[in-house]
Amino acid sequence: MIYDAIIIGAGPAGLTAAIYLLRANKKVLVLEKETIGGQISSSPLVENYPGYLSISGSELTGNMFDQVLNLGGEVEIEEVIKIIENEVITEDNTYKTKTIIVATGCKPRVLGIDNEENLIGNGIHFCVACDGAFYKDKKVAVIGGGNSAVINAISLSDYCTEVILIQNLDHLTAEQNLIDTLNKKNNVKIILNGKVVSYIGEDALEGFILKNNEEIIVDGLFLSIGQVPNSDFIKEFLDIKNNYIDSDDCLTKYPNVFVAGDVRTKEIRQLTTATSDGTTCAIKAIDYLNNFS
Amino acid sequence: MIYDAIIIGAGPAGLTAAIYLLRANKKVLVLEKETIGGQISSSPLVENYPGYLSISGSELTGNMFDQVLNLGGEVEIEEVIKIIENEVITEDNTYKTKTIIVATGCKPRVLGIDNEENLIGNGIHFCVACDGAFYKDKKVAVIGGGNSAVINAISLSDYCTEVILIQNLDHLTAEQNLIDTLNKKNNVKIILNGKVVSYIGEDALEGFILKNNEEIIVDGLFLSIGQVPNSDFIKEFLDIKNNYIDSDDCLTKYPNVFVAGDVRTKEIRQLTTATSDGTTCAIKAIDYLNNFS
Repeated sequence: MIYDAIIIGAGPAGLTAAIYLLRANKKVLVLEKETIGGQISSSPLVENYPGYLSISGSELTGNMFDQVLNLGGEVEIEEVIKIIENEVITEDNTYKTKTIIVATGCKPRVLGIDNEENLIGNGIHFCVACDGAFYKDKKVAVIGGGNSAVINAISLSDYCTEVILIQNLDHLTAEQNLIDTLNKKNNVKIILNGKVVSYIGEDALEGFILKNNEEIIVDGLFLSIGQVPNSDFIKEFLDIKNNYIDSDDCLTKYPNVFVAGDVRTKEIRQLTTATSDGTTCAIKAIDYLNNFS
Repeated sequence: MIYDAIIIGAGPAGLTAAIYLLRANKKVLVLEKETIGGQISSSPLVENYPGYLSISGSELTGNMFDQVLNLGGEVEIEEVIKIIENEVITEDNTYKTKTIIVATGCKPRVLGIDNEENLIGNGIHFCVACDGAFYKDKKVAVIGGGNSAVINAISLSDYCTEVILIQNLDHLTAEQNLIDTLNKKNNVKIILNGKVVSYIGEDALEGFILKNNEEIIVDGLFLSIGQVPNSDFIKEFLDIKNNYIDSDDCLTKYPNVFVAGDVRTKEIRQLTTATSDGTTCAIKAIDYLNNFS
């Protein structure tokens, strides 16, 4: 059995690629190591996906998953450990395929302190474009000091009553023009050399405690300390840049291997850009299959 | 009054840009000359948008429109005739704005033969969802051979007595699963290498004549032969390539002007790539607004 396409990762990018390939009558296997739906499936409320006023991440990706199943897509929960040419190797199986779409996404970096996992989605967030609007007229903290932390703090300051930016170094590492913009905001407080040592709140975040024992009460907290692309298993096979798979246009150095979604080097990582990547990969894979295989 | 952003065009690209800008608390005006939802709003059935197993184009874009209204976006039905720096000029108004997002999409292509303009709306149509029902138990033709032509033919075959699909090439270019579905219909006739050379009927369409002189009598005809970018009004202001606005990355030569969706030079024109463009433009506009205005 040789698949037309194996898609690694069942987040929005991978599921969209599957929908397009299946509608073109191709034989598709989706391999997912952990959670159908990917990162967004843990978001309780998505309000920036065009077409839904408001939906949970799990319901939205559940719908995408239903589309794939409805079209006859096969899905297996298996971790891919290696790719060799036209083979995808998991712990238990070796699958043969004509094309491969890598859509393994990222995981957000976390602080790794007590009860954090439980509070994620319940006061702790990663994406301001996704979840910031829920904290209009409320008090929030942003953890981090790089570009995305400062951009997030600027953005939140437009509609939150107060924004506290906590950076663990003695200076912000963001670009100067971003810092200048941040400094013009009246409702932003910057704490340098700040280190969060514990969270307050059992099932919902109420605040946090710094290493100097200062207690800070907030309604929400955004972790902006980076993301870790899920690219380890493929580092010997594809070109990697800062841990992301290096690809400007969803193509790779192999004509039958494509990259979609957050794991790819790109500027904007959103649901819409993930589904766009999935579409692009699928259409390019269909072209490849129809012309070269 | 100065808007943070004026978005020209209320299709999926423009509406998505509005959603992102409004969630960042920016003051947004959307200007649309004709139809909220753009071209896709006339599609009876959308099955490749991730998140909906099946939905009409008008319902899908209606949902996006609701998101914009819900977030406090202003929308006016006015045709933009010119842009000058930070001004957007319509027949009746001149609006001031800090950023502009052009998302004007494309309009359906016509055959350009005698009396066509007069017959549009009187037997010649583009939108099966809008006008198909008028032809229940009647005989219709669809001109074209791509996805939308085949989808329209499938849809019409459900309630018309006979559907004739006229394609000017020697094969259909639609996805195979669509062609398979079409082939299962008993009341669909496919004419390949067919070219309509004239219409029959003065004030209402009665039929048409093919280049082989074959005369075909129908009650209605749906044109599904592609599109022309809506870029005329902006040709002196932005760079144009094959009538599309030339932009690789949604940026233009003006730092405060962005381009999203089908009107942009790009490889793949799909709902997902339109919403991705809308997202990209909005995030770049927000950056511009936060840093330089």
